[in-house]
Parts: sequence; structure tokens; C-alpha cells
Amino acid sequence: MKVMLIILDGMGDRPSEALGGLTPLEAAETPNMDALAKKGINGMMDPIAPGIRAGSDTAHLSILGYDPYEVYTGRGPFEAAGEGLELMPGDVAFRCNFATLTDGKISDRRAGRIKEGTHELAASLDGMEIDGVKVIFKESVEHRAVLVLRGEGLSANISDADPHALGPVHKVKPLDDSPEARRTADIVNTFVKESYERLKDHPVNIKRIEEELPPANIVLPRGAGMVPHLSSFTERYGIKAGAISGVSIVRGVCRLAGMDVLDVEGAKGTAKSDFHAKVVAGLEYLSNGGDFVLINMKAPDLFGHDSDPEGKRDIIEWIDSAFEPLNDVVDRGIIAITADHSTPCDVGDHSGDPVPLLIAGKGVRTDDVEEFGERSAMKGGLGQIRGNDLLNILFQLAGLSEKFGA
Amino acid sequence: MKVMLIILDGMGDRPSEALGGLTPLEAAETPNMDALAKKGINGMMDPIAPGIRAGSDTAHLSILGYDPYEVYTGRGPFEAAGEGLELMPGDVAFRCNFATLTDGKISDRRAGRIKEGTHELAASLDGMEIDGVKVIFKESVEHRAVLVLRGEGLSANISDADPHALGPVHKVKPLDDSPEARRTADIVNTFVKESYERLKDHPVNIKRIEEELPPANIVLPRGAGMVPHLSSFTERYGIKAGAISGVSIVRGVCRLAGMDVLDVEGAKGTAKSDFHAKVVAGLEYLSNGGDFVLINMKAPDLFGHDSDPEGKRDIIEWIDSAFEPLNDVVDRGIIAITADHSTPCDVGDHSGDPVPLLIAGKGVRTDDVEEFGERSAMKGGLGQIRGNDLLNILFQLAGLSEKFGA
Repeated sequence: MKVMLIILDGMGDRPSEALGGLTPLEAAETPNMDALAKKGINGMMDPIAPGIRAGSDTAHLSILGYDPYEVYTGRGPFEAAGEGLELMPGDVAFRCNFATLTDGKISDRRAGRIKEGTHELAASLDGMEIDGVKVIFKESVEHRAVLVLRGEGLSANISDADPHALGPVHKVKPLDDSPEARRTADIVNTFVKESYERLKDHPVNIKRIEEELPPANIVLPRGAGMVPHLSSFTERYGIKAGAISGVSIVRGVCRLAGMDVLDVEGAKGTAKSDFHAKVVAGLEYLSNGGDFVLINMKAPDLFGHDSDPEGKRDIIEWIDSAFEPLNDVVDRGIIAITADHSTPCDVGDHSGDPVPLLIAGKGVRTDDVEEFGERSAMKGGLGQIRGNDLLNILFQLAGLSEKFGA
Repeated sequence: MKVMLIILDGMGDRPSEALGGLTPLEAAETPNMDALAKKGINGMMDPIAPGIRAGSDTAHLSILGYDPYEVYTGRGPFEAAGEGLELMPGDVAFRCNFATLTDGKISDRRAGRIKEGTHELAASLDGMEIDGVKVIFKESVEHRAVLVLRGEGLSANISDADPHALGPVHKVKPLDDSPEARRTADIVNTFVKESYERLKDHPVNIKRIEEELPPANIVLPRGAGMVPHLSSFTERYGIKAGAISGVSIVRGVCRLAGMDVLDVEGAKGTAKSDFHAKVVAGLEYLSNGGDFVLINMKAPDLFGHDSDPEGKRDIIEWIDSAFEPLNDVVDRGIIAITADHSTPCDVGDHSGDPVPLLIAGKGVRTDDVEEFGERSAMKGGLGQIRGNDLLNILFQLAGLSEKFGA
């Protein structure tokens, strides 16, 4: 047992009228997290900086010690890495949808949420070359896919082909005056056109048309991002680190950071995830030579986006029940529980409110906090830290970091 | 109603013996601010950074999201912008006094606090050209004026012509070895000499001499500063922002930041200001399409500089009474009350002590603080923030900011 960091995605919230002025976390019965808060030290964390509305990708980057303002240009690279693509710094990556083009216009942005045949469709696009740039294309869940452009002189500063609505496909435009942006926009426009040429009569689509399903006859890229060079923090600290998450962009961030991204049966990134299995898998990873494991549980964020405070309270209770095994091992290592950002139900999106944080385990200076919650953590002994400081704090508690100076 | 930020200039203080060990804010009866503190979240703010003794100009720059160490080279540009001059990045601006030169020495640094005729005197200097540099000169209140030099190759790194005492005029010197500083010093020396030539026999002064008043026969520039390029935060956030202040440098900072600087009848920047009118004008601005309004109230700072703790306590009580309308609207938006710096009466000048901050309104996570004061705010849930973080916090609470990441 060394360091386990559990990130309850979007768990932070604001006082909710439906919960009598409490937040979902405050309203939830969470005996296991309360026990850890009581025997630990508590505080608030700004995932990036005070007031900044973090995404899950930028927040995880910050928590893993990177400066998201330096390394983040768009969601694409993390999505692509999360799908297991091997990326290289300088690649430009995109999220994509398979969509349906009818009479020159997008008639279904998700091609009827196509479930079968996307592997074959993707294979017909993967490996093409446009203007000396290599195209890597891979299907993801349902209508989703990822596109990677590999070559010299590319830019991620371009607009989306996806119109984000029905109607004509958007022509991708450079967002600055550089030749790189112009060239990359041209390449993506060519790719979109070529995707239609290659997919429109593809056997998968001929069969779909016969079955009166919308054909997946065009690909719409969006969210261009340049793959950053992330100096591996596992090498920097000289540790073995793993990640458990059902969320593609979180898996992608962790993979690009050099972590082992573990596959856990039942880890789905939804409210139906097997939270217990994730905790057990995390403990096993630490038992088998791992120094650090990050476990992301997506469900609270989903209820925040759905503006459902009761649902968020209930899922937090259910997640808490999966933490029972932690009480037996906490004295042997360091356990931290926090969130990557707040997703207040009253907002229905990520906010810039800080998140509560508890750190329990061997050697921790305890404080007076008796339960885990936004406003109890405010009174904790940790004060207010930034996401970027968290690993340094956890690793020094676990004796994993080097002294700086004499 | 969106975001109202009220800055009580220099309100922060230290425990005062004259007030039984309380600060003026702690000693004051402030039912309205206490009510807001109670229903809000409280904390401490370092206007620039812990221990830094901020000026009103540098503190307001920091609070508006700029790095004063980068954009601030002297008071001149903010004074000039506060007087309504249209400035361009690269201009060098100065505060000036009209003074009286007798037998080659300054005999009155304020020309008898001249009240009339300064417009005519200024007009005789405005528009001259020295070494290819354009001179813009405008009178301000009483003996005060502003000077702007516009042209290529200028520097603000020069000394003052104002001797800050009676005696000979100081020769302006370059403060570094650059040709720009040497040239600008020469230009200012020429301007000072020329001001005497043009003013000594000016009809306004001939009349003053007849009336046995000291003539305003020379101009003494000081506080040179280079006009910075301030990227407009209103554009960055995509909001409409206004400022209400009777203080020239605060008006100047807000104007250079791209805010609407509002003129409110009775806003004087003194203890006799109509504080109620300022609050009402701020609420009106928000009702008429404004997203954010900053209201500066100068009076507490004046009592701090005068080392008058009872006076400071009393003016804080008087200001608090103007805040009654806020209790009716706070649930519809976000209200923050703080100071730009501490001006402890025992110091008689700005100190580097952090200032108390309350934030009340829709969605705010409340804390246990029951009244507004330096030492009650220390126990609040906001912890300790920096001036630079404040707008990010307020704007995310009001739903005015964008998400960074996915």
C-alpha cells in the first residue's frame, strides 16, 4: 500500500434547495468517507486556480503536475490516447462522429447512433495519406471515432468540420494566419470529402440503407488538439503509477502522462460502474508493485450535468459503500479523496468552485473535521491548495519524493 | 443584477488601542455588511501578493486581472487616463503641479492652490512639439495637471522635475543608460523651461500678481509612467463592465482596462461623497445591460492616512448605511465587498496586510462567519486568495466565464 487517489468526477457542488440547503455530498450518508476525513486532514482544492472552470481533462492534467495552459490545445489528443492510439508529440488529433449526409446536408449527426460495422468503416479510412501527412483513424464507442494527422508542419488552431447541428458540413478554417493552420485546414477538408467518397458505397452502409438505417457515410472531425510532450511524472518521481477510469479523456491524460491504464471489468464511466471492483483493482495494483494509483469515478458528474441533486446524493452514497475496504488499509499508506471539479446541479455544468479534499493515512497531521463535505473541508487543516500541489503533498507523505536542497 | 464589486479604499486596518484593540471595521456597527457576510462566504485577500504594500493603482490593476509588475511603471498614465485623456500604448505620462518660481527657486509647490485660470494656462502649453515629440497637457483639479509625451523612442525611466520641497527645480535625469531615457529627460527639461517662458507673462498670472496671489508660472512633472497595453478584460470575458469612482487613478485604471467609467453626481472621492448615490448608480448600470460594476469608495483610506481610527470607524458606519438596498437584490446576483489595500491608522500609509473579503449571492457556499471584519473573515470559507483571482471567482459564480477544457 502506497498512494491511492480517488477522484469523484464533478462531485463538488453548491447548496441545493432540494436538499434543504446542503450540497449532495453534505446530504449523503457517507460513513466510510467520514471516517477517513475524521482520521485525516481536510481542505479545499482549486483544480487549476481559484475561479477557473476546469474540464475533466485540464483538471487531471493539473492534478498530475502539468500546466494545462501550456500543454492543452484541445480535447482530441486525450480522446485519441484514451482509445489506445499511440501518439507522438506534434500529431494533431480530433474527436469525430460518423454522420449521415443526405443531399449535401447532415441529416443525422450520429448516423442513427450506429453500433455495428464501424470497425470496417474506420479501416477503409485508416492509413490514407493527404499532402504527405499520414491519417490514422479509429472507431470508438457507437458513432464516435478519433482521427490523428501525423506529419511535419501541422497546427491545431483550426475550426471544426462538425456543424454541431443539422445542415451543411462546415468548411474547416484556419484560426490564425500561419501556413501550418491553412495547410491543416485544407487537409481536414480533403479528409472529410474523401471520407464521403470511401464510405458512401461501403458494404456496411449498403446493408444499412437496405435495413432503412441512416448510413454512416461521412466523418465530422472536431476539437483539434496538438499532442503535447508530457514529461513522464512516473520517471520524474521514479515510481510505478496506474490509472483506473472508464472515461476516455481521463484514460488519455493518464496514458500520455506515462501511467499504466488498467482495464477493470465493470469500469464503465457511468452510474452503473462497478465502483467496488475499481477499488479492489486499485488495491491489487498497489499490492503488485504499484506506488500510486488514480481512480476516477465519473458518475457524480453525470448527475450534476443532469441537474439531479437527489440522484447525485444517492450515487455518492452508493460510491461510499464501495470504500469500506479502505478503512482496513489506510494506516499502511496514503489515501486521498477529492474531485476534479465541481458540477453544481443548479448550474448543470462545471463551475469554478473549489472541491473538497481529504488525505488520510500514515503520519498525516489530523484536524478537527469530522465528516467529508464542502463546508466541513473548508475548516480543515490543509487550507486551500491547487491541483498542481496535490501529488507533491501525497508523495512526500508516502516517502516517495526527493529532498530539494541540503 | 449580475456582479457588483465594492472596494472600500484602504479599509483594512490593524488593531487600534484607541478602539479597545479592535480595527475600525471591527469597531464599526455595520448591520448591512454583517448581513451580507452572514449569508455569504468570507476570506482574506492579498491585493497583489502576501506582504506587498499595494497602491490603489497597482491593487486595482491586480484585481482587474493584470500583473502590475508587468504593466505598471508609474502613476502618470493612470492619472492622465483618469482625467479623460485618450492615451496610446507607448505614450509617457506624468502628474504635474502648477507651481510658483521666484528668483530661480520654487517658492510655492502648488501656486497658492490655484483654482481659476488653469484651463487657459494649460491651453498655452498643450500641443507644443519638442524634438519631434508631441506634448499633450491638460489641467486637473486645482493646481494639478497631467502631461503626456507622444512619439517614438521614449522612456519612463527618468527622475522627477518636482523637487517635492521648496528650492531649485530638479533637473530630470535618466535612470538608466538607454538613449531613450536620456532623450526623454532632455525633453522634459525643455518642457519645464518652456513652461516658465510661456506662463510667466500669461494674462492669468499677470492678474494673479496684481491680486497678490502666487503666479502659476512653471509646471513640475513627476511620476513618469509608460502607457501599457492592457488587453481588455471586458473583451476577454465578453462582458459589459463599468466603474464608479471619484479617484482619478482608479478611474484611469478602469478606463485603460476598457470599462465604462461612469460619472455619478456626488461621487467625489472624499468623505463627503454621496455613497448612496454610487450604490444606486451601480445597480442602475447593472439593470441597464451591465454585467459587472466596480464601485470604489475612497473615504476610509483618507482617515487611515490621517491616523484617525475613530473617524475611520465612523465613515465605515456611514458607508454601511448606504448598503441597505443591497440586501434586497443580493439573491439575484453576486455582491463582493473588500478593500484595495490596508491603510492602518497606526501606520498612516498603505500596509501589506491582507484585506477582508465577503462574497454573497446566488449559489454561494456559505460559511459560519457572522459579521464583516478582518479577524472574522480570517475564519471564513474562502481562505486566502490573491487580488488576481477575485474576478475569476466572481464571474464563475455569476455564470459569466467559459469552461477551460472538456
